[in-house]
Amino acid sequence: MTTGATLRREPRLVTLEGGEGAGKSTVLAALRAELERDVRVTCTREPGGTPLAEQIRTLLLDPTHEPPCDRTELLLMFASRAQLVAQVITPALERGDWVLSDRFTDASHAYQGGGRGCDPRLIDVLEHEFVGIEPGLTLLLDVPVDVGLARARGRGGSDRIESERLEFFERVRSAYLRRAAAQPSRFFVIDATQPPAAVAEHAVDALRRYRERSA
Amino acid sequence: MTTGATLRREPRLVTLEGGEGAGKSTVLAALRAELERDVRVTCTREPGGTPLAEQIRTLLLDPTHEPPCDRTELLLMFASRAQLVAQVITPALERGDWVLSDRFTDASHAYQGGGRGCDPRLIDVLEHEFVGIEPGLTLLLDVPVDVGLARARGRGGSDRIESERLEFFERVRSAYLRRAAAQPSRFFVIDATQPPAAVAEHAVDALRRYRERSA
Repeated sequence: MTTGATLRREPRLVTLEGGEGAGKSTVLAALRAELERDVRVTCTREPGGTPLAEQIRTLLLDPTHEPPCDRTELLLMFASRAQLVAQVITPALERGDWVLSDRFTDASHAYQGGGRGCDPRLIDVLEHEFVGIEPGLTLLLDVPVDVGLARARGRGGSDRIESERLEFFERVRSAYLRRAAAQPSRFFVIDATQPPAAVAEHAVDALRRYRERSA
Repeated sequence: MTTGATLRREPRLVTLEGGEGAGKSTVLAALRAELERDVRVTCTREPGGTPLAEQIRTLLLDPTHEPPCDRTELLLMFASRAQLVAQVITPALERGDWVLSDRFTDASHAYQGGGRGCDPRLIDVLEHEFVGIEPGLTLLLDVPVDVGLARARGRGGSDRIESERLEFFERVRSAYLRRAAAQPSRFFVIDATQPPAAVAEHAVDALRRYRERSA
């Protein structure tokens, strides 16, 4: 399986990735505040980020719906992402904004690829053909699965994917770490067992150094 | 773009295709009655056919929703289809039913390929990877676009795709006819400008001859 399309790296697209209970919310707020000191920022999340994509999110995550089979889940994730790129991310980048996204295509490689076992070459084809861009910087909050799940379950109320079994999340974590190791120029991995303020400080520091490098 | 997966032809899967106002409903009822004389039949439709796929159908067709961009539309169509194949069509074929579907993958080649201009090789990849099967017999009800649209608009209330412009439906019709010409062993084209009873008779006759040939 090959594709003719190329992936364009977007220097002003920054994504935050991580498993359940990695502490993304605190870090997102800190990254946003850091960027807003001197640039315009569009914040978004996946799956979702447009009215249609949020409806797709509901179909994907609401445990009261008929569960999608693995291939349906993969297609719905990319449908949401294609819509988000067309409606939100591309227009924001074109008007000069920075874009900060809570998860992006790496999450499909980790969850649908690592977690569900979907063929990674197929995910590559969908990424190239339906997304077409990749982030300049991806911050990966890494936390052992048991620690992350204990945190996430402390919040109460799990969605369909959060209700998966331990081995699923071990595969998700491994896929994220393999991806980060394979693309060191784009990924920055942060040990998210540290207290939230320390994790946020590391993330902001990584963003600053990234902006200095690319300036 | 190539794919390693092969498409399996399912002799007991019969699909009905056609543009707006081609008269599919009358023909479907006649085909179903013909099959039910001696076999069990599962009837379904696309997009839709499972609770989740019907929710995807609403996202696709309801004109009050945020319209999907072309690539999102293509992915949502295949998400609905992947779910239908996994939840309805494959189990029905496995228990020995015949399956009669109001539209199937050919509709994506016609509407998203011909109509919207999506890359046909990409649709092929999605078909091979996410559907994996093709019908043994496809009946295509062919009608000139102006005749079909006049009929469909006579019914009142157009969905999002039915509200497209004339040239869109001309491209859909051409794509259907090209596909039928390229795969004569599977397609049977019926002139649907004839009265509904005559169209239904031709369709039932084609189904009988198909069953005799494959017996």
